[in-house]
Order: sequence, then C-alpha cells, then structure tokens
Amino acid sequence: MTDPHPLLDRLREAVGAAHVLAGDDEAYVVDWTGVHRGRALAVVRPGSTEEVAAVVRACAEARTPLVPQGGNTGLVGGGVPDGSGRQVVLSLTRMRTVREVDPVAGTITVDAGVVLADVQAAAAAVDRLFPMSLGSEGSCTIGGNLATNAGGTAVLRYGMTRELVLGLEVVLPDGRVWDGLRGLRKDNTGYDLTQLFVGSEGTLGVITGAVLRLFPATPRHATAWVAVPTVADAVALLTLAQREGGAHLATFEIANRQALDLVLAHLPGAVDPLEAPSDWYVLVELAGTASDDGLDDALERLLSLGVEAGAATDAAVATSPARRDALWALREGISEVQKVEGATLKHDVTLPIARLADWTEAMGPRLQEVLPGVRPVTYGHVGDGNLHYNLNAPVGRDRDLLDAAPDLSRAIYDAVAAEHGSISAEHGLGRTKAAAAASYKSEVEVDLMRALKQALDPDGLLNPGVLLTPPAGT
Amino acid sequence: MTDPHPLLDRLREAVGAAHVLAGDDEAYVVDWTGVHRGRALAVVRPGSTEEVAAVVRACAEARTPLVPQGGNTGLVGGGVPDGSGRQVVLSLTRMRTVREVDPVAGTITVDAGVVLADVQAAAAAVDRLFPMSLGSEGSCTIGGNLATNAGGTAVLRYGMTRELVLGLEVVLPDGRVWDGLRGLRKDNTGYDLTQLFVGSEGTLGVITGAVLRLFPATPRHATAWVAVPTVADAVALLTLAQREGGAHLATFEIANRQALDLVLAHLPGAVDPLEAPSDWYVLVELAGTASDDGLDDALERLLSLGVEAGAATDAAVATSPARRDALWALREGISEVQKVEGATLKHDVTLPIARLADWTEAMGPRLQEVLPGVRPVTYGHVGDGNLHYNLNAPVGRDRDLLDAAPDLSRAIYDAVAAEHGSISAEHGLGRTKAAAAASYKSEVEVDLMRALKQALDPDGLLNPGVLLTPPAGT
Repeated sequence: MTDPHPLLDRLREAVGAAHVLAGDDEAYVVDWTGVHRGRALAVVRPGSTEEVAAVVRACAEARTPLVPQGGNTGLVGGGVPDGSGRQVVLSLTRMRTVREVDPVAGTITVDAGVVLADVQAAAAAVDRLFPMSLGSEGSCTIGGNLATNAGGTAVLRYGMTRELVLGLEVVLPDGRVWDGLRGLRKDNTGYDLTQLFVGSEGTLGVITGAVLRLFPATPRHATAWVAVPTVADAVALLTLAQREGGAHLATFEIANRQALDLVLAHLPGAVDPLEAPSDWYVLVELAGTASDDGLDDALERLLSLGVEAGAATDAAVATSPARRDALWALREGISEVQKVEGATLKHDVTLPIARLADWTEAMGPRLQEVLPGVRPVTYGHVGDGNLHYNLNAPVGRDRDLLDAAPDLSRAIYDAVAAEHGSISAEHGLGRTKAAAAASYKSEVEVDLMRALKQALDPDGLLNPGVLLTPPAGT
Repeated sequence: MTDPHPLLDRLREAVGAAHVLAGDDEAYVVDWTGVHRGRALAVVRPGSTEEVAAVVRACAEARTPLVPQGGNTGLVGGGVPDGSGRQVVLSLTRMRTVREVDPVAGTITVDAGVVLADVQAAAAAVDRLFPMSLGSEGSCTIGGNLATNAGGTAVLRYGMTRELVLGLEVVLPDGRVWDGLRGLRKDNTGYDLTQLFVGSEGTLGVITGAVLRLFPATPRHATAWVAVPTVADAVALLTLAQREGGAHLATFEIANRQALDLVLAHLPGAVDPLEAPSDWYVLVELAGTASDDGLDDALERLLSLGVEAGAATDAAVATSPARRDALWALREGISEVQKVEGATLKHDVTLPIARLADWTEAMGPRLQEVLPGVRPVTYGHVGDGNLHYNLNAPVGRDRDLLDAAPDLSRAIYDAVAAEHGSISAEHGLGRTKAAAAASYKSEVEVDLMRALKQALDPDGLLNPGVLLTPPAGT
C-alpha cells in the first residue's frame, strides 16, 4: 500500500489544487442509474492533454488505478469507481474545445470532454451533420461516446460511433500520448489502433481528442408514427422501408404499448397521435438534403404498401416541425419516464432481425413464469435488431423485481445467446455486465481480449473490473 | 534449423498430398507487380477452416513462418514469401463456399477464398448490393480484401472493407480458431477483435471466413465523364456533387490526361468521349434504388452548376448501360494499360481533400527536378482524397526511372507527410512499404503496433517482414 498523500500532492501539481476534488463527490462517484455508488481517492479534472498525461503518469508511478469519466451518463457502471476508495476518477469534462471544423474534408476535431450536443451544433453551424443522436446528448461527452462505442437512433443510416471516427488522441497507461488525430478516410498503414480504443471503455487508454466524420446536412424529413400489430409486422414494414426509402431511411424505431402508456402518463404534454390503441408502434423517418424533394411521396408510398400488406394498421404523419418533435418526444421520453414508474431492470440486446419477432413472442410467457405480473417495456432500434428489453416491476412490487433480477436477466441472456445475439448492443459491459459477457464468450475470445489488455496495460491500472473481470487468481 | 521433411509430411497429412505444391510455383511466389519474386518451402492449399488450423499448428510447432495468400493480386508484396525458401505459403483459394445469404438481415457469410466478384454476384442474386468494387475483382479473394482493408471505387459512399464487415473467423498463430462470425450491426461486448484483424495483412491471424454487410440494390445510375481544368476544379465539383447528389453520390474518380492517353492508346475500343482534350477528368456517378427517379435531374443540375462555376468545361453523360460501361472502362483500364507502357513507380497516397490541389500543383515540378521527363500518370479516388500518383519513365528510359525510384518516392512521401496524409491509402504496407511507414510514424505508434504483434504472435511466425519491419536486433 502506498500512502495516498504524496500522490494527491502530485495530482494538485499536475492540474491545480482547484481541480482535485474530494473522492465522495456524488456527481462523479455515483452513476446515472444509481446502482453503482462508489468512492474514490480523489476526482481529478485536467484541462489539457498534457495534464491528462501528467495525471496518468503520476498514478502509474504510484500504482494507483484510474477511472476515466466523461459526462457520467453510462448505464453499466463503466465510468464510476468501485467502493474501495483507492481509485482516482479522471474526469475529462474540462476539456471542451472544438479544435477544428473542416466542412470540405467533412471532419471535426474535438476535445474528449465536448458535450455531444455541442459537437452536433458545431457541425450544423457549417451546414453539416454529425449524426450521432441519443437521449443523453445534452450531457454525455464525445469521449464517453467513443469509449463506449455509443449507438442511438441514427445507427441505421450512419452506423455506431466507431463508424463516425477517423482518428484519436489517446494517453496510454504509461502516460505517453499517442497522436492519431488523422482526418483521413483512407489510411492503410498498419493496425487499426483507433478502432482498438473505441469501445474499450477506458481500459486501454484515455481518449483525449478525436477527429470525427461530418455528413451533408439533412434538413428535410418525412416522419410517421405507425401502429403495427406485431413485431413481425414491424420487421415486414422495415423491409418495405428499406426498399422505398433507400438511402434516405434514417430512423426505424419500435416501442410497445406499455412504453407508450408510460410516456402518456408521465411526460407533460404527450398525446397519443392515433385513435385506436395498438400493441406495437414504429417511428419511421426519411431524411434528405435540401434538394431531396421526394421524401413525402416515398413515405406515403411506404405507408400505403404497409397497410396493403397488413403490416401497418394506422399512421400519423408529421405535417410540421412541431408535429415531428411531438412524435420524436414519444420515443425519446421512454427512458426517462421509466424511472418514474419504479424499479426497472434494463437489458440492451441485439437479435438477428429475422429472429426478432419469434424471440419477443417467446420471451414474454417465459418471463411470466419467472415473475408473474412482470411488465416488459420494450423499445429500441428495430432497424438494427436492437431492443431495450426492460422490465418494470409488477405494480407495487418493486422488491420482487429486484429479487428475481438475476433469474430474469439470465433467462433473457440465455435466449439471446441461443440466437447468437448480443447481450450488450450499445451500452457496453462496464461493471454490470463484464462477468455475464465472459460467461457467454468462448475461451479463445476472452483470451484474446486479455492478451490485448495485458499488452497495453500490463499493470492493470486503467479501469480495473470494467469490461473484463479480473483474471483468475488475482 | 528444423529439417523440412517432417513438416512437409505433416502438411500432406493435414490437407492431402495433392494440395501441397512445390515452393517455386510462380503463381504463388511471385506477386502481381513482378517486383517480389520469392521462394517457399511449400505452398499449402487447405480446403476448410479445420485444415487451415492444422497447417498453422504444424508450422507453429516446427517454428516455420507462414505467408497467408488470397488471389495474389496485392500491390505491395504482402502475400508472397521472401527469398529464403524457409516460409510456407498458405493459399486460401480452395475455400470458396458462400456459406449463407440473409437478405433480411442484410448479411452474407463467406469463406475467405471466395472471389470478390462471386460475393457481388451472390448478393445480386437476392436483389442486394455488396458494394466493394476494384479492378481485380475477378480474381482477388474476399479474405485478401479483408486482410488488406481494400478500398476501390465505392469507398466514397460505402467505406473501406472494414466498414463492410460484421464478423470474422480467424485461425490464430497457435492454431486455435476464433469464431467471431456474428452478423450483428451492434455488439458492444468487448474489444473490437474484428477490426484488429482487418488490415493486419496476415500478421496476426489467418482469416478463414467473414460475415459481410449487404445493402439495397442500386440498379439506377446517372453517370458522366467530366472535363475539369484543374484538380482544384475537381474538388470544387466534388462539393457540388455532395450537395446535389446527397446520399446518391456513389463515385467521384479523377484521372489526368496522361492516364486517358494511355487508355486510348492501349485499350481496345476505347474512345475519347469528349471533343477537346482537358488536363483533368472526373468520373461521377449517382446510384439509386429502383424507386429513385431523380438521379438524371440531379446529375444534370450538378453539371450545369459546375459549368456555371467554371469547374467543368464539358461532360459526356451516359445515355445507356453500354455507354456507362464505356465510361467506366476508361477509368478502370488505367491500371492495366500502365503495365504496357513500361516501367511504373506506384504511389497510393491520401491527402486532406482541401490540400489535394496545391499538393498536386507543387509535386509535378518537384519531380521534374529529380528526374527530368518523368511522366506522372495520376488517377484515383478524389472523393476520398486518395490519388494513385504513379510515375512512368521518360519515354524509352525505363532504367532511369528505376535508378531514381528511391529519390522520387522519398520526395512524394515527404510531401505527403508534410500534409499529414497517408503513404498507403488502400494498398497496405506489405514488404514494399513497411520500412517507409515505420520511418514516418511516431515511436509511440510503432511501439503500439509491435505490442499488438507481440501479444498475438509472440514467435513472429505469421508473415514476418510484412507490415512491420523486424524489431532491431533480430
């Protein structure tokens, strides 16, 4: 054991005393879900890449584990310390400079601590689109998005975060800085180090900057909230949407009636846009540039074909930007209102799209066997095969949900694994799912991951316990 | 030194004697450019993943280096053995089964040895598009495309090979098989092993299978061959094309007059589609689904705007599929006809698009100083900032080009490095560029690459001398 005080002095030297906070500051040591309540040796807030490097070096020399953190909006406890009080939280939120915007090259270079909404705004200011969009975009940081390979509602068209990044600046576990800030779409000069760090959840290095891709702005939208009888119908409608929408298909989200009911009950101003209730809904959107004038027709065609095929029973088409916002609010409100309703057990799974309907059909009854009365609030990105298959407690019985949680999650994950799906589509593993992931992966795959961790962080000081469980015998 | 014969016996046992060929078979030990003429201990052609694993295990136990090889169409000597006669060539070309096509999920699962054109055809058979397209598509294999992260003419819209792959099956250097054949767009359960192997040029593992992404078919095209006065005009036209074409912009290629002259001289049936000669040309194509009926109008608008702005002086629009093929042949014929013309020095560079014009402008005179009379045959993917900046010898003076080659390449690479470009946009490093890449990279970056190599292939048996130069002291 090292005495903490010499390290704290070095940290104060590195970033200034005002930016070394106490280790019990809830904003930094408790996660968004409230499930993970840690305690840190200190919270350090460097203001530059050089300061990050100095902090990492100091901690490496003191053999003190570091937990990198962005906006602290993660859902799996990947950005908060454990309860030991021995880890240092390294918050990137003071690093929020947009370093450069190049509309011709279609790139933007940012500090890791820039809030996602600010990246979007900087792109919009030069008539470009940075397409990543998620519920927490007003507070999550781009560094956190990169570290977790965040998803969201634009993945269908633009891909996950890893598809939006061209280059990175990373402080390595020994404090050296890797400058990989290249804005090139094509660069075949060795291993793809950028993609190695994206999604590594702060376990291989600390991302301090990034070059991101920009796209042509898409100011035109055609948007509809569509009632679909079943998940199978949603998938059938997706196929039609891909054909009719082509490259314009930007969003294809699903929600069940339970999810809509929660939003209608708890979100101020929310109104059901359709007269008759439906078991399932789809939010579909086509997006185009200023010169794409066929979007409304394409949406109209898609909806007619959907109704003809029996895949859609009714639809509300957004006739104004305000109506569009209202439809989006129904989808985006779900995550927040779920908290109001009491205990929630979250799952973020991917299934092969062709298996989505059968899987969902079979899952409901199986969960009722585990916990009668459990209420699946299902929504997500059906165009990507990604469901947020969340469970609310039977009314008034939060305790029962918590007790049954291991069995419920196991049932869901087993069923996902049987379909070769993923138990974490976009949230990452963090502390919550590291052990579960290891249990579903092959030994070869776990060995490969451990070999990479060992190669880059041989002392295991970066975010220990996140993504990978500690090796046996430690 | 091990005696080769026990290993040869084991290899024959593993794959059958008929599939162990002599080590001097030119089809396997000489590369497409003819520059690299190696010699192998043997050429082994396994027919299944299990056989590949057996071959890798046998070579690992005999401490014999292995060179994985696909269609042997690489341009940097990454798939042929050195001259020692001690390396075993592992050809994947007998593994050519399309394992599964899933049009709903938009995936195709293939053996590594499937020829690229056969992947395209299997996708087309279910009304889908596998967009990767390159000159060698009739003979290159998808495994080679993956190992080199191949580019081509569809990168602008669909990205490099790494953006087209969802999962891999890889035989590791110790002979174990990693089954990462997942067809999921979203799977955030650990480090991205797939992207680590893509572009690793056979130095970390042997790719034996892959799940690839399919896209909606784009049977509609609007295509034009456009005369542009300068590279700066081409870049200006690109900006217009991005705005007017939006998501439909699929191709934006450039060629200089020297390149067109070579094609007109050597490609049977080639005709200049425009009356007056121009210093530079652009091949632009918009592509859409069956229901996209605005492509011709968008192209027309783009060309009018281009002429108005002075960025384009004339254009030939394809009025039939045959005319379209003829325009494409002018672009795709360049690489092949260059061989006819005598000695060629190839460079495959990326520049930031905004610097492309100035860079090209400055490069010409600088090279004339190094070798008066040298003829730049410049073409490539201007939409990606990627130029094939090739040099033909002064007429009748092949020898002079070969003598000046190191100085010419150094001048080009120095100028690329000064602009933070890439000295290998899409061809990879292979044996040809490994040393040059190391000299332009930071020490930190080379160390990271070596650490990954060491972690996965500690004995250095997979494709030694390719991508990375041997560490100092070996």
